[in-house]
Amino acid sequence: MKPSIPKGTRDFIPYEVGLRNFVKEKIKFNFELFGFEPIETPSFEKLETITGKYGNDGEQLIFKILSNGEKLSKADLNSYERKNYSKFASSISEKALRYDLTVPFSRYVVQHQNELTFPFKRYQLQTVWRADRPQYGRFQEFLQCDADIVGGNSLWQEIELCMLYDRIIHDIGLKGVLLRINNRKILYGFSELLGFESRFVEFTTILDKLDKIKFEGVKKELIKQNFSENKVQILEEFILDEGSNKSKLERIKEVFEGSKISSEGINELLFIIDNIELISGLESIDLKFDLSLARGLGYYTGSIFELVIPNFPEIGSIGGGGRYDNLTESFGKKNLSGVGISVGFERLYMVMQKFKLLPEDLNNKVNVLIANFGKNTALTCNSILKKLRANGIKSEFYPQDSKLKKQLSYANTKKIEYVILLGDEELKNEEFILKTMREGTQTNFKISQLESIIIPKLGKIN
Amino acid sequence: MKPSIPKGTRDFIPYEVGLRNFVKEKIKFNFELFGFEPIETPSFEKLETITGKYGNDGEQLIFKILSNGEKLSKADLNSYERKNYSKFASSISEKALRYDLTVPFSRYVVQHQNELTFPFKRYQLQTVWRADRPQYGRFQEFLQCDADIVGGNSLWQEIELCMLYDRIIHDIGLKGVLLRINNRKILYGFSELLGFESRFVEFTTILDKLDKIKFEGVKKELIKQNFSENKVQILEEFILDEGSNKSKLERIKEVFEGSKISSEGINELLFIIDNIELISGLESIDLKFDLSLARGLGYYTGSIFELVIPNFPEIGSIGGGGRYDNLTESFGKKNLSGVGISVGFERLYMVMQKFKLLPEDLNNKVNVLIANFGKNTALTCNSILKKLRANGIKSEFYPQDSKLKKQLSYANTKKIEYVILLGDEELKNEEFILKTMREGTQTNFKISQLESIIIPKLGKIN
Repeated sequence: MKPSIPKGTRDFIPYEVGLRNFVKEKIKFNFELFGFEPIETPSFEKLETITGKYGNDGEQLIFKILSNGEKLSKADLNSYERKNYSKFASSISEKALRYDLTVPFSRYVVQHQNELTFPFKRYQLQTVWRADRPQYGRFQEFLQCDADIVGGNSLWQEIELCMLYDRIIHDIGLKGVLLRINNRKILYGFSELLGFESRFVEFTTILDKLDKIKFEGVKKELIKQNFSENKVQILEEFILDEGSNKSKLERIKEVFEGSKISSEGINELLFIIDNIELISGLESIDLKFDLSLARGLGYYTGSIFELVIPNFPEIGSIGGGGRYDNLTESFGKKNLSGVGISVGFERLYMVMQKFKLLPEDLNNKVNVLIANFGKNTALTCNSILKKLRANGIKSEFYPQDSKLKKQLSYANTKKIEYVILLGDEELKNEEFILKTMREGTQTNFKISQLESIIIPKLGKIN
Repeated sequence: MKPSIPKGTRDFIPYEVGLRNFVKEKIKFNFELFGFEPIETPSFEKLETITGKYGNDGEQLIFKILSNGEKLSKADLNSYERKNYSKFASSISEKALRYDLTVPFSRYVVQHQNELTFPFKRYQLQTVWRADRPQYGRFQEFLQCDADIVGGNSLWQEIELCMLYDRIIHDIGLKGVLLRINNRKILYGFSELLGFESRFVEFTTILDKLDKIKFEGVKKELIKQNFSENKVQILEEFILDEGSNKSKLERIKEVFEGSKISSEGINELLFIIDNIELISGLESIDLKFDLSLARGLGYYTGSIFELVIPNFPEIGSIGGGGRYDNLTESFGKKNLSGVGISVGFERLYMVMQKFKLLPEDLNNKVNVLIANFGKNTALTCNSILKKLRANGIKSEFYPQDSKLKKQLSYANTKKIEYVILLGDEELKNEEFILKTMREGTQTNFKISQLESIIIPKLGKIN
């Protein structure tokens, strides 16, 4: 039986590892350009650190690690009999794999608070695991890329994060990207205005579906859930307002004259939008105030971001973020405001694949293969090999004296540019032949010319 | 209660991430210099892939992942009652975290055999997990770095791997490293000679302790286990032979005249040692034939390597490897010979720390902090910031208009080299002040000089 890997996971061949590293480096480069510094946290956290942070649905998707040996004797069989598998699982597990990077980061900030200088700007490129049903663009193991700033509530931080998204998108050459922005306070103001504030979560969850089911769908669902039809009607004109960001915000501002909280949200958004405009902050993405954007309201307390590609809706969002005033509260530290963004690496990678933005030529190939003509010449070949490598030229010696055709085919498959041929005849003449694989040309050189001519020549292609 | 992480795991602060990346890059660079290509495999494998590969002791250290939800209903409670926790665990788990990189690699080779070109040279830098008792230099989550060649039995591959170790050690500047080498066939020949072949594993396991318990200890234990004292005496003179590699091998060769298998082993070792010498293959490590080296005999079939630092024995080995003729047999593919080495990243890192081989200055710092003097100047500051970043200069704007002292202290902590000061006065004069943090000098520049003077100047420090 052919061996295989768990569903939702992937093997990466060398070419893919190279391409993925290329994209990772772009993201890392820009994170660092903006002053973010890398941290790394363990792959698994204590169960108590992760539990209770992701809601019921998220909780189901956490991979728990089974305790070892004797610790299993503490299995809670009563819960098992009562089919309370969740409680049963907790009795035989003390750790769980990272579900996201935010909770480990919050834990990190609280645990290391005395060593950190605030505002603390960290980025993290690490794998996360979710027991999700695998589907297009969704895996059980995937890379997440987060940049967050904690300790500070300046709106310049929001501006910085918008510009960071822009630089990444600009750098990879992606077009047609939209950064949707909203503010929880405006959403809350609206729900107050419409009298929906007691059902805020329910209301915004339906509203957030606008993208997928259009306003007609949202309206239908709100009415079905007994939200007042008249009030829903008021909502419509604001949601469907196709004006500029500023005109939309000014219009809402008027309606909200009396409400402190929503005015605050509007002023925050205006500050961000105005200043980005004044410094011509965005080159490659458009910023759009979108009243229906309602993601992450369980934790976001101010700005909310979502990065999408309107022409490629099937991929979903390729990034998201927002401001959270209570990030570290569950770990015992209050009043530490933070704001952050996440780049959905796997989706971004798929987008780059689709739009042919991944490089064809990665410049990480082996430069030289030294062919093997048997034991008489192997020693000389390996002396040459040693010199090439000492000069930083990626090279290898074909280990068997197989037929030359097979050796050249190996060079072709690995996209090696040069092959050095050194058989008995060449050895006698103290020579070797340098064959270029693309053009097929062959030139004879003296072995003594290796350091003066060949190494400088081959070194250049690196 | 202060949050914490599971025992045997670690958080890495930015400085450590930088240093670890520095060491990783050295290893990757040399792996690629030698023509190895990177692959990546999933963090968890199917339980059946991992089970039965690591012996009883290893098996206990595998982290199993608990199945989710309904799958738990299949718990084997009978086994639980009989305290057969291992079987119980297998009934509620389908996957396990990577225990090493070798088994996933074997699985990969068999699974992808039709896509690969042999000899296939791969390297892998990935985390592995073991439920080991944490102690000095031993973690539950740690990085492993492996380079293997499969499909080919040329001894030039062994030579290449010895030279690869040498280049890595040379590159990081470590002195006093010893590469111990042996061959399973010689060990087997010896056990034949002494009449111990039916107890080969037991014999070599005791022999392998030589390092720790000296020959006296080995002898005592062998005799205690009823190995013939006379025969053990014969062993002594070969084990304690302090001659050169070649003289030792020649001497053993004489004794083995009749035995095919051990002669084979000796000829293999002589080929490796001779040719390395002939091409002056090793610059920074010594190669030593060590008859007592007996690691990995469960899978190694020819050469055996171990990389140690005799002057730093408490760290244990910093690398190991060997040739295995049956790597992929358990996955249904026979007759695929391979040879590989592993670098123990965590230990190597600790060694570099101890011998002060890690760089003090990582060149990954933020270059410029733009101080914040409030809202009048924030916009101009952010225009400057945008230009710096567009030119690849790592920079940030302090988000609050805190006291300058606090802002400068932030710059100091992050080791930022320059601070740009632009208050109301400077704005009026269309100027800013460039402050160097090390020298404390301050120079005024026109904002219009940013692109002609400042950016070229700051760009250079990158």
